[in-house]
Amino acid sequence: MQEKMNKEERTEYRRNQIIAAARICFRRSGFHGAGMTEIAKHAELSVGQIYRYFTNKDAVIEAIVRDITHQKLQFMLLGASHVHPAAMAAKALSLRKPPDLTPRMEEDHALMLEVTAEATRNPRVAEILQEADSRLFPQACTLMARDFPHFTPEQIAARVEVMATLCEGTAFRSVLQTPASPELLHHLYQQLLQLTFSDNENDE
Amino acid sequence: MQEKMNKEERTEYRRNQIIAAARICFRRSGFHGAGMTEIAKHAELSVGQIYRYFTNKDAVIEAIVRDITHQKLQFMLLGASHVHPAAMAAKALSLRKPPDLTPRMEEDHALMLEVTAEATRNPRVAEILQEADSRLFPQACTLMARDFPHFTPEQIAARVEVMATLCEGTAFRSVLQTPASPELLHHLYQQLLQLTFSDNENDE
Repeated sequence: MQEKMNKEERTEYRRNQIIAAARICFRRSGFHGAGMTEIAKHAELSVGQIYRYFTNKDAVIEAIVRDITHQKLQFMLLGASHVHPAAMAAKALSLRKPPDLTPRMEEDHALMLEVTAEATRNPRVAEILQEADSRLFPQACTLMARDFPHFTPEQIAARVEVMATLCEGTAFRSVLQTPASPELLHHLYQQLLQLTFSDNENDE
Repeated sequence: MQEKMNKEERTEYRRNQIIAAARICFRRSGFHGAGMTEIAKHAELSVGQIYRYFTNKDAVIEAIVRDITHQKLQFMLLGASHVHPAAMAAKALSLRKPPDLTPRMEEDHALMLEVTAEATRNPRVAEILQEADSRLFPQACTLMARDFPHFTPEQIAARVEVMATLCEGTAFRSVLQTPASPELLHHLYQQLLQLTFSDNENDE
């Protein structure tokens, strides 16, 4: 027998239902193509019900980005535990996709592209992106500092920025075929990451 | 006295008029938010006139991407002539923007984000992006081969891929504040690019 949800559980359930519907709508038609009416229809709720949980479309975007950020934080913690990060990164960058890429992660990436495009015209969405990065960046620094204790916090931050740039650039270019050989790319990334994480006296 | 345009000039003029209007509409509302009707209104033409020059919205996107690609090719040729590419790139990457960034280039970048998001759901737009990269990538290889004749074409391609990844990643992250120090970032990029372009015997 199914137990009745309490008020909190129902709120959580409804919010997730709306987020799931909004993800589908945004993927299909972009943020501007998908209105609250379409999201409501997909969630099988009335527009009025949607507004009870989200004040506007930006609030829905915020919830989606928070969700994706949470997944990324978990992924970072899991990924950090077993393989040397430089070796793993060289492999992933040369294959131009993260290890164990799931359809959900691909969808997250496409949504983040959408969010970033929107951030260039909507200051609230730019803020949402900044908040997400302000959660991800320090966690990446903490994990990297644990593996590379010889660096100062400033040196770690520069290295996290370079890694983030390589990851975003790779994801951005992953819609394209590249003429570059995966082997040579792997070798080059290995060398670059080795240098990035080496304890170089002449570093600064 | 203004001379009358011939048929070819008029076609060119109309196409540019429509492209300019579409850029504004796409920037304002995204591809799905901006319809042919809105583009026509901005171009001060009828919808029927628009369809005389572009069969559908994808064709307008294609013209916009061709235009941006042409600009990028020109920029590459100009930029390649005077400064050592590694030094220029280290500076640009650490400042997280290309040298002499114009408002037009910022707008182009925002439009390319939009196009890339669209490419994840629209195979025709993915093709348009691929065509653009198939023009840009070989030109970057040619310019790099001229400056670094010690590399094989395969080594050049791997290096162009890494540079493209760093540029796209930097542009992607440029909407964000980073906690990384520009000085340390500059120093790290200098080291990485020096390694990328050095004549290393152990390279492959």
